[in-house]
Amino acid sequence: MNYPNGKKAVLHQEAKGQGKQNYSNRGMTLEEDINHTNAYYLTSDKAIIHKKPTPVQIVNVHYPKRSAAVITEGYFKQASTTDYNGIYRNRYIDFEAKETRNKTLFPLSNIHEHQIEHMESIVNHGGICFLIVRFTAFNETYYIKAETLLSYWKDKLNGGRKSIPYSAIKQEGYQIPFQYQARVDYLKVIDKLYF
Amino acid sequence: MNYPNGKKAVLHQEAKGQGKQNYSNRGMTLEEDINHTNAYYLTSDKAIIHKKPTPVQIVNVHYPKRSAAVITEGYFKQASTTDYNGIYRNRYIDFEAKETRNKTLFPLSNIHEHQIEHMESIVNHGGICFLIVRFTAFNETYYIKAETLLSYWKDKLNGGRKSIPYSAIKQEGYQIPFQYQARVDYLKVIDKLYF
Repeated sequence: MNYPNGKKAVLHQEAKGQGKQNYSNRGMTLEEDINHTNAYYLTSDKAIIHKKPTPVQIVNVHYPKRSAAVITEGYFKQASTTDYNGIYRNRYIDFEAKETRNKTLFPLSNIHEHQIEHMESIVNHGGICFLIVRFTAFNETYYIKAETLLSYWKDKLNGGRKSIPYSAIKQEGYQIPFQYQARVDYLKVIDKLYF
Repeated sequence: MNYPNGKKAVLHQEAKGQGKQNYSNRGMTLEEDINHTNAYYLTSDKAIIHKKPTPVQIVNVHYPKRSAAVITEGYFKQASTTDYNGIYRNRYIDFEAKETRNKTLFPLSNIHEHQIEHMESIVNHGGICFLIVRFTAFNETYYIKAETLLSYWKDKLNGGRKSIPYSAIKQEGYQIPFQYQARVDYLKVIDKLYF
C-alpha cells in the first residue's frame, strides 16, 4: 500500500533472495531460467533458440462478436519432440530440459520414448542434441549429451537400471555455469564440445 | 452403409478427385500437404522437420477427478517465429507457409514483422530459410528464398509495393514439384540450391 510504483513489492522480493547462495536460488524454475537465457542469446544475437509452444488439442472455440476468439475446450497433448530448438553458429540445436528433486539419480521415466527417438534422429542428421538436468536439491544444472542419454536408455531397454546416477552425471555430464545474464549458459558447453 | 471396411467412402473420395488436374486438387490445404510431406520425410529418414504447435495463452484449466485436465479458457497468440523448423543434411531449416487466393500477387500483409525479423536472423546465422506460397487459383506452389522475401519487405518499408507480384514469384521463386508421397517436395528445391 502507498507504493504506487510497486517498489515495496520489488524490495520485498529482493530481500527474500538475500542470504542465499546465488541468484538462481530465487525460486526460478529451470524453464524460466532457460527462457531468460534464450532471450539474452536472442537480443545479443548469439543464437536463435526458442521453446516450442505447449501442444494443445483444441476442441471448442467460441467466437464472440467484437472480441478475440476464446478456446473453451482444449486438452494438453504429449510432446513428440523436445521442448527447445534453434540455430547456433550454423548448427542445428535441439534439447530437452528437466528438473528433479531426487538427490541420487535422474529417473529416465522423465523422458518419453518419442523424445528419445527424436533425439536419436537429430544426432544421426548432424544436429547438436542434449538434455539439461537440474538437481534442485543442490541447485546444480548439467548438460548431458544426447549420446550419453541414449546409451543409458538402451541399457534400460536391455534390463539395466531405469535411471542415471547423480555420480555418473557429475562424471559424464558438464556442469552449466550460472551467470547473471545467461542463467543457464549452455552455449559455453557447446563451444567447448563442438567448436 | 454395408461397407464395414469403409471402402465406399474411400471410393467416393477418389471419385471426387477424378477429372481434376492432380492429387493436390482434392481439397487439401497447403498446411495438410506440408504436414503429410514432413511425415513422409520423417518416416523415410530424409529430414526431421516439424510444425510448431499453435501458440495458446492458457488462462483457465479445470482438473476433474479421474480424467484429463481441461483447458476451459485460452486465447490464440500471434506466432513470433515461423511455423516449421528442423534439420536436413546437417543444416538448420526454417520456413513459413502461406496460401493465397489472389491471382496476381502475394500480399506481404500475410507475414508479420516478427516473422520477418526472425527469418533475417536465421539467414544471418547460417540457416536455410524460406517461404512456401501456394496460389490456390492455379494450384501452384512456390519456394521463395528468405533473402528474396526480405528484399521485397525492405522495398515496402521504403514506400514500395506491399506485395510480391505473381510474375516475380514465377521468375525469382522455384516451383515446388507435386509428388504423391511428398506432396510439397521442397527438399528437391533445397538440394538444387544448397547442395
